[in-house]
Amino acid sequence: MKQNTPVLDCWLTVGSTYTYLAVVRIPGFEKRFGVQFRFRPFNLRLIFNEMGYFPFPPNSPKTAYMWRDLERRAGMYGIPIRLPVPYPAKDVLLANRVALIGSQEGWASQFIRASYRQWFEHGREPGSEANLSESLREAGQQPARVLEAANGEDAHNLYGRETSIARDLGVFGSPTFAVGQELFWGDDRLEDAVSWAKNGRVLRQP
Amino acid sequence: MKQNTPVLDCWLTVGSTYTYLAVVRIPGFEKRFGVQFRFRPFNLRLIFNEMGYFPFPPNSPKTAYMWRDLERRAGMYGIPIRLPVPYPAKDVLLANRVALIGSQEGWASQFIRASYRQWFEHGREPGSEANLSESLREAGQQPARVLEAANGEDAHNLYGRETSIARDLGVFGSPTFAVGQELFWGDDRLEDAVSWAKNGRVLRQP
Repeated sequence: MKQNTPVLDCWLTVGSTYTYLAVVRIPGFEKRFGVQFRFRPFNLRLIFNEMGYFPFPPNSPKTAYMWRDLERRAGMYGIPIRLPVPYPAKDVLLANRVALIGSQEGWASQFIRASYRQWFEHGREPGSEANLSESLREAGQQPARVLEAANGEDAHNLYGRETSIARDLGVFGSPTFAVGQELFWGDDRLEDAVSWAKNGRVLRQP
Repeated sequence: MKQNTPVLDCWLTVGSTYTYLAVVRIPGFEKRFGVQFRFRPFNLRLIFNEMGYFPFPPNSPKTAYMWRDLERRAGMYGIPIRLPVPYPAKDVLLANRVALIGSQEGWASQFIRASYRQWFEHGREPGSEANLSESLREAGQQPARVLEAANGEDAHNLYGRETSIARDLGVFGSPTFAVGQELFWGDDRLEDAVSWAKNGRVLRQP
């Protein structure tokens, strides 16, 4: 990466629905605008619990809307999506600790995208054995090694520390793009975040 | 209006912050894309109460984020904004019944925009005497007449009926744009809504 490449943190939790759009769109933004994203998985469920809030409860109008909006926007971006998919995913903590190991070792981007494709194209929920194994293989990793590490104490501790950093920064949803202290929440703020990273303000086109 | 002009309902509550951006942007969209918006004020606080939820509690990271995001996006659109402003506004029910009378009589658009300018440029909260009187005058209306009507039984009943229609449609936030049964929530879905009204699907440019 060039020395003056703007870097954005992408705080995310594998298991968030709208995050699918962002992780698929990010590589194009990196190429087109000369920026780089760092994937930073954290425990959003813990933060929701602390807020006493879950944004998409079953059978609510807001949840029904979320699926419809997600489908329409995926269509707009040409991103494949087959709904319905299992939701909420049961074992997202494991999937996120795997992604965190990927962030340390440099394959998070491939793993996270593969995991989302498994979920939204093939209906295999993130954190399930089938999703994890296939996504790790697509990221060039040996599932047994990574899963053992992801279940170890170091991974749990690091995940907790990353979640504390996210909380202290004021992150309350996924994806959240951070440029220093400046936060941009939601796939629909990806353009704003890149604009900020490049120009120090939000323009209509990054 | 031409016979084939697509019409979108803009379900809104005066008192919602992001709705400011939408009501200022809508006239330009009407001209540019040949669509028309109908303003439909409803009682969003009642729906929040039913959901057991208020999206922007004091001192929460999400609320701090909302103000920052609103300010950045207003800047992007060139919309004047002076923060902080009083929030939440105390008498929004009255402001919304006034807006509803405006919808029936054809001056809602002017009143709502004036009320938002009073709030975000001059710090006078919607529903306050100063905001109501000035905004009604800007909309060409005699404050005493309209306020009497807004406090009457008919206005209360109509407001309740409109809120029921919004609830039945699945509206849970403001602004929500509706094209038939298709909903688009948030100022940041204004482009999507107009695209749907014109093309029957969401394109990157309406």
